[in-house]
Amino acid sequence: MKIALAQLNYHIGNFESNTAKAIDAIKKARTEGADLVVFAELSVCGYPARDFLEFKEFIGLCEEAAQKIAQECTDIACIIGLPTENNKPEGKDLNNSAYFISNGKVQQRVDKALLPNYDVFDEYRYFEPSTEFNCIDFKGHRIALTICEDLWNTIENPLYITRPMDTLIKQQPTVMINIAASPFAYNHDEERIAILKDNAARYNLPLFYVNQVGAQTELIFDGGSMVFDNAGNLIDEMPYFEESIAYYTLNDDASITFTHQSGIRAERESDIAQIHQGLLLGIRDYFYKSGFTRATLGLSGGIDSAVVCALAAEALGPENVMAVLLPSKYSTDHSLKDAEDLVNALGCKSETIAIKDVTDAFETALSPQFKNLPFNIAEENIQSRSRAVLLMAMCNKFGYILLNTSNKSEAAVGYGTLYGDMCGGISVIGDVYKSQVFQLARYINREREIIPENTIIKPPSAELRPDQKDTDSLPEYDVLDKILVEYLENRRSSSEIIQMGFDEATVRRVIKLVNTAEHKRYQTPPILRVSPKAFGMGRRMPIVGKYLS
Amino acid sequence: MKIALAQLNYHIGNFESNTAKAIDAIKKARTEGADLVVFAELSVCGYPARDFLEFKEFIGLCEEAAQKIAQECTDIACIIGLPTENNKPEGKDLNNSAYFISNGKVQQRVDKALLPNYDVFDEYRYFEPSTEFNCIDFKGHRIALTICEDLWNTIENPLYITRPMDTLIKQQPTVMINIAASPFAYNHDEERIAILKDNAARYNLPLFYVNQVGAQTELIFDGGSMVFDNAGNLIDEMPYFEESIAYYTLNDDASITFTHQSGIRAERESDIAQIHQGLLLGIRDYFYKSGFTRATLGLSGGIDSAVVCALAAEALGPENVMAVLLPSKYSTDHSLKDAEDLVNALGCKSETIAIKDVTDAFETALSPQFKNLPFNIAEENIQSRSRAVLLMAMCNKFGYILLNTSNKSEAAVGYGTLYGDMCGGISVIGDVYKSQVFQLARYINREREIIPENTIIKPPSAELRPDQKDTDSLPEYDVLDKILVEYLENRRSSSEIIQMGFDEATVRRVIKLVNTAEHKRYQTPPILRVSPKAFGMGRRMPIVGKYLS
Repeated sequence: MKIALAQLNYHIGNFESNTAKAIDAIKKARTEGADLVVFAELSVCGYPARDFLEFKEFIGLCEEAAQKIAQECTDIACIIGLPTENNKPEGKDLNNSAYFISNGKVQQRVDKALLPNYDVFDEYRYFEPSTEFNCIDFKGHRIALTICEDLWNTIENPLYITRPMDTLIKQQPTVMINIAASPFAYNHDEERIAILKDNAARYNLPLFYVNQVGAQTELIFDGGSMVFDNAGNLIDEMPYFEESIAYYTLNDDASITFTHQSGIRAERESDIAQIHQGLLLGIRDYFYKSGFTRATLGLSGGIDSAVVCALAAEALGPENVMAVLLPSKYSTDHSLKDAEDLVNALGCKSETIAIKDVTDAFETALSPQFKNLPFNIAEENIQSRSRAVLLMAMCNKFGYILLNTSNKSEAAVGYGTLYGDMCGGISVIGDVYKSQVFQLARYINREREIIPENTIIKPPSAELRPDQKDTDSLPEYDVLDKILVEYLENRRSSSEIIQMGFDEATVRRVIKLVNTAEHKRYQTPPILRVSPKAFGMGRRMPIVGKYLS
Repeated sequence: MKIALAQLNYHIGNFESNTAKAIDAIKKARTEGADLVVFAELSVCGYPARDFLEFKEFIGLCEEAAQKIAQECTDIACIIGLPTENNKPEGKDLNNSAYFISNGKVQQRVDKALLPNYDVFDEYRYFEPSTEFNCIDFKGHRIALTICEDLWNTIENPLYITRPMDTLIKQQPTVMINIAASPFAYNHDEERIAILKDNAARYNLPLFYVNQVGAQTELIFDGGSMVFDNAGNLIDEMPYFEESIAYYTLNDDASITFTHQSGIRAERESDIAQIHQGLLLGIRDYFYKSGFTRATLGLSGGIDSAVVCALAAEALGPENVMAVLLPSKYSTDHSLKDAEDLVNALGCKSETIAIKDVTDAFETALSPQFKNLPFNIAEENIQSRSRAVLLMAMCNKFGYILLNTSNKSEAAVGYGTLYGDMCGGISVIGDVYKSQVFQLARYINREREIIPENTIIKPPSAELRPDQKDTDSLPEYDVLDKILVEYLENRRSSSEIIQMGFDEATVRRVIKLVNTAEHKRYQTPPILRVSPKAFGMGRRMPIVGKYLS
């Protein structure tokens, strides 16, 4: 049996484009002599379709698209993922399903049993878990078809009370297929390989795994579909962060052969290289799928906006990036120079708009109220917010999308101005800690100096008052980031983190800052997710709480 | 057996205050001769604690608080709600539990079986559902204790595959107790009464129901705890939107007696009266629980800001409300006059800051880029955003929280400026349709004219260009709101809504506006929820989707 794995980039709710892609892949696979094409989880509608799933019309459109795809499958079979109506009288209205289609018709339906409902996942919001498991017979093979999380219930720490493969294996399948929509995080590829390898070996079956690729607002799907032999050896790995179709022959002795060069990587890519690729895809798909082409951002001369500008230029083309330099009276000369050097290195467009007259106008307008009260955060924020008004005016006049340039460390401790530098359509590096931003800058400069060396080596500053440094109000970033990782990603308490050897006062201060900044993060743009725990849909905190604040 | 129902206002993660409240109620109940005090679901930590539940330390603090409460229960018993560790090796780490405490010790634990995971609820994110059900024997009675949703699996349209009471009834209980954290929506009290009545009658048992009261950021809990006899008759109803403790004697013949006046309402309060009370509690608790006392808002002379200003003055006291009038060259004289009349009627503070010099400064700063391009949305938004910068500067200088004044109709169709009039710490009327805002204004004026009649009767306008009216770009609000209710609340498709008799072009335009404004709503403040479907945590849509956009 010749199997085609179709790793495609879907667009949520864009039935026309998703269906056309599927049909195109089926046609290609046919010319390659494939017997079966396998698409990813919920490929018909894109993942995650979120509350669109609550609309009956949307579910109907999924079924219609599946029928259209079925008509193409006269001399070839396919497996596609879609939401379907729950046939049982009780439970949620839907199932997260896969159709096995051949001879132009849906022959069998498989429903997902293990529904992730943690971090960014909300599947139990929509779907009823399956309790029945049946293999699919096709071309002399018996396929144990499962959907993503169905293979993720580990023996050591089971998150669910059932394990679909334990039932399916009793039906003596000859091969496992798993269709997935598994989002990227810099450490997720290794975890994925380990889990899949373990399944192939435990059930002594070859395993074909197809993942989605492409970004859906904040979630980036990295592809990296894989094939394992029945001893659990990884025998092929499809590309990451791009669409691809690959062909494999599953022989009767369960061995797998293929004619293309194996994509297995000698070693995993570094975290930063993966984050770099992920962010490029994230930016590109955010713009493409929203129907926009051009970005703007405020370029300060600092490292955060420099990295975002370089990423945007690579993702969208420098001709589609408008960098706006917005100096104030507190901006240093070297900052302006660094920003200009970057613009020149990238070849993007730029404008310079001094904000002094605007901030003066605000201060004059407020002088009856502010009287002679000392300069404080109010005046600092006026600068940041004046820049946002100018940038948004450029967007409104010329059709740019504003890129947010806040990093994860700042977002964590609330070191940013709401409606000021926290603005934007999408946050590019909001899931990248400041210490990773430095690494990313070095990575961007790996072949030639794009980001000026001076931008990388100078002490970070918001430049909202004379001689301001980030370290005036925050710990050094290397300490701060380590505390943040323990608190945010590992959910350790302050006392546990202190026991690890961090300074008590610093730990308590940092965690208090994190918890009192929830109201700010609530109103920030969606953040491209590259870590296992990003701010946004995957981290849901009370705003008016009292714990650790 | 004398039962005290304690309907209290908890604060998420504020263990000190929540524990003190519980102990105080136990002491009061003891002096009243009660045998048992019943607290609400997850009362120990407050509901919803959201991802705080992922911290082991947080769960430990819940247990500590419960032990402290247990020490008080030497000659009286109590039922409290808290998250506990799942004792089974598989499944989620936690259960949503109730402790039955007597003789100073936790005697029995009951876990919730039906975990709401729709709309604003995420319980399956944290909790494993219970599969074992046992009654509690106390003072000659056998109590079937369930937690909130456990009684909400209707016979006609079951959302879950189990029904805890069907198991418990086999153990021949003599009384049902249900502890809840059931948030307010203007139609929810009737639904709640119907469900509980149905349970009492079906199982032929008296039923005591205790709900939380108080607002937790966007969610408003309305209390309204209730008692039913075994025929399903509602025999008492505790107050709505305030704390209360009430006492009942459950007699051996299953009859219930009490000495206070029954709180049953001859007729339900109107939707608008309920919304009014809910919003007052929502504002009050947002400020109190955040540790703030003073609010500011931009007062335009229009109805939305007038209603918010009146609500804030009632909730916080007029001395704690600073209304800022921010006229532009497009503001009409009558608007300024209407705003001033309102300030006088309320007795709140006010300042006037003209924005012309600021917007002129922006336009001058941008003239090299904008050249002579015609006035458009860019210049309109500069006005709105300049106001936001001024209001936020007032907040930063004087410690106000900015109240957002957008209504639900505007928020739905994206008729508002991001980082402009969409700013604020909390959105007061973001779940109130424009047509309901008019009703709310009339309700506020029910005894005397507070909101100027002229504000209510003039055609709504954003006043961002000469002679602008909302109806220049939107359908009349009475039509718009009806379409929005069908689409947002009833999840009807455009074709279904058109079939109901609405104009096709209008329906398609409105729904497209809703779906293309997701990126704006993503960045708006939390919205006080008063309807069954509010924007925010209860409505989760893709931003970069294609369906109906």
